[in-house]
Amino acid sequence: MVAPIKNFLSVPKTMFGVGAISQLNELLDERRAGSGHIVFFVDHYFKDLEKYNIRVDSGDLFFQVDTSEEPKTVVIDEYTKKIKDSGDLPCAVVAFGGGSVLDVGKAVSIMLTNDGSSSDYQGWDLPKNKPVYKVGIPTVSGTGAEVSRTCVLMGPEKKQGINSNFSLYDQIVLDPNLLETVPTEQAFYTAMDCYIHSVESLCGCYLNDFSKAYAEKALDLTRKRFLGDGTHGDMMIASMFGGNSIVYSEVGVCHAMSYGLSYAFGIHHGEGNVIAFDYLDQYYPDYMEEFREMVKKHNITIRRGLCADLSEEMLEKMIDITLLMEKPLENALGTDWRNIFTRDVIKELYLRM
Amino acid sequence: MVAPIKNFLSVPKTMFGVGAISQLNELLDERRAGSGHIVFFVDHYFKDLEKYNIRVDSGDLFFQVDTSEEPKTVVIDEYTKKIKDSGDLPCAVVAFGGGSVLDVGKAVSIMLTNDGSSSDYQGWDLPKNKPVYKVGIPTVSGTGAEVSRTCVLMGPEKKQGINSNFSLYDQIVLDPNLLETVPTEQAFYTAMDCYIHSVESLCGCYLNDFSKAYAEKALDLTRKRFLGDGTHGDMMIASMFGGNSIVYSEVGVCHAMSYGLSYAFGIHHGEGNVIAFDYLDQYYPDYMEEFREMVKKHNITIRRGLCADLSEEMLEKMIDITLLMEKPLENALGTDWRNIFTRDVIKELYLRM
Repeated sequence: MVAPIKNFLSVPKTMFGVGAISQLNELLDERRAGSGHIVFFVDHYFKDLEKYNIRVDSGDLFFQVDTSEEPKTVVIDEYTKKIKDSGDLPCAVVAFGGGSVLDVGKAVSIMLTNDGSSSDYQGWDLPKNKPVYKVGIPTVSGTGAEVSRTCVLMGPEKKQGINSNFSLYDQIVLDPNLLETVPTEQAFYTAMDCYIHSVESLCGCYLNDFSKAYAEKALDLTRKRFLGDGTHGDMMIASMFGGNSIVYSEVGVCHAMSYGLSYAFGIHHGEGNVIAFDYLDQYYPDYMEEFREMVKKHNITIRRGLCADLSEEMLEKMIDITLLMEKPLENALGTDWRNIFTRDVIKELYLRM
Repeated sequence: MVAPIKNFLSVPKTMFGVGAISQLNELLDERRAGSGHIVFFVDHYFKDLEKYNIRVDSGDLFFQVDTSEEPKTVVIDEYTKKIKDSGDLPCAVVAFGGGSVLDVGKAVSIMLTNDGSSSDYQGWDLPKNKPVYKVGIPTVSGTGAEVSRTCVLMGPEKKQGINSNFSLYDQIVLDPNLLETVPTEQAFYTAMDCYIHSVESLCGCYLNDFSKAYAEKALDLTRKRFLGDGTHGDMMIASMFGGNSIVYSEVGVCHAMSYGLSYAFGIHHGEGNVIAFDYLDQYYPDYMEEFREMVKKHNITIRRGLCADLSEEMLEKMIDITLLMEKPLENALGTDWRNIFTRDVIKELYLRM
């Protein structure tokens, strides 16, 4: 039996351009329609939204999101409780930040209309009720979270996404100017998320012409940004294209390894990818030279020697988490992946990182 | 005053892949929900839909669309009347064919819920009522009609699109296998529509990073299809990318001239573009060599000497139609375009075609 061809959902509305953020108040006023209030999630890097003239009304809720760690299900549940306890449902959830903040916005918009804990919904197509309308405003580019139908959360037992059409933003505002103040390392690690999942998409067996076109152009634009004369706008589009590429394909070995690193060390996904990718010559040989050229050109020091002293127990847990990534591993290595990517192989790779 | 940045609407659902058409019955059954009927518009090139196992039920309406000419507002109005006279509104309009058929599906879906003649809605954002749900299934690639918010109609007085969010398909099904039986010339002319509007987008002053990325990749893929080893799938994606490119940019001189050729001779838009482009070295010098290489490789004989014997009156009308394309001409030539692209310049160009 052939797998059905996905009928994929796009973000319905996109506003792209330098200065687009100046149109946000107007967009939100349409949603408020006089009486509604809005919940803002803002990366703690931005103290407030005044610099961008974004209006936060007295009835609105404003949460500063600590993005030093990746979003946790317990934190999502706390936000949800606070919002529910404060009164009526908001007319919109606005997320302003990087991939973590975008994922918080997605998860909370779903949990406001679906009972229980967000950890109950980690998996595929589990939320049943339509979420609160949400607007995503990326301030660093690469994750693809602005166009993807997942929000990846660290649960008590696993790191896994809420994969659902309900995770998709209703509106995204892409303003290249927002990327101007991102620290170099963070911009680099996040962009490499795009670079690496585009490579994984191109090298995987799930690839079709749709995913190929998006991944190839995402690579071109990322390359242009970090080895040529690319703009912030180019990287913003690269991120969107990289995210679209995954619609019909999957990530691969690197993402599967990165998840284990995030679990053990709380390392951000982008940095985890960079750490892992540097040891995956065997799987992605054609891209290593270029990747290392970008690392070198931007003076990135990849953390090393992380896993040597880990307990056996933690290593086994990291291997468990890696092996949970069944589709990415099948995409990367074929249906026989379990016999190729054994616990021993994974362990040996982790021990080198 | 700076022009506002567009908040553009995407086709909400896309199904891409070889064999995707086999999933259409299931999609439509969801819409029928037991009792609804469907209106099919099918390119006259396909006698019926049996070859693709698409079920047409006894209550459905089936129209064979004569695509030897481009869609006219009077024809749209006739279709609309027939459907309205036959009873309840359909639960879906399905268009199966090239750009003309896709435009017929768009226009009829709008006219079923908006009074008057389709010629009343040629322009920008004129329809007021939500259209009937519609599915677009392209069988030849290049126009971008599958993702665009316009449907171009030949009216009694002008060739112009119904430019509206309501023109956007709710669902598109992109199956590269459908392109297999397209005659070479038609495939070529339609693909060149994509090539040419991508060139016009890249060379225009409206260009931003979004439109640039889409146009560059659309060119790459079209080039690959006609000068390399590209697949039908590549061309299907090129068409979608070319259409997306226009979201934030515009077409240019060639489209403006092509409209006049269509008006005078009923020439299809794609062929009109090819005829006109071959005389536009001055405006698009960087792309002429490649364009002519594609023409040569595929043994395309461009019609020539069309306009030499036209009446003064017809030539003046063609110039009027060209000059109606204000945005494309501004995009191509800057705000001073009226002083550059004068009636004399346009006339001289037409007389060479």
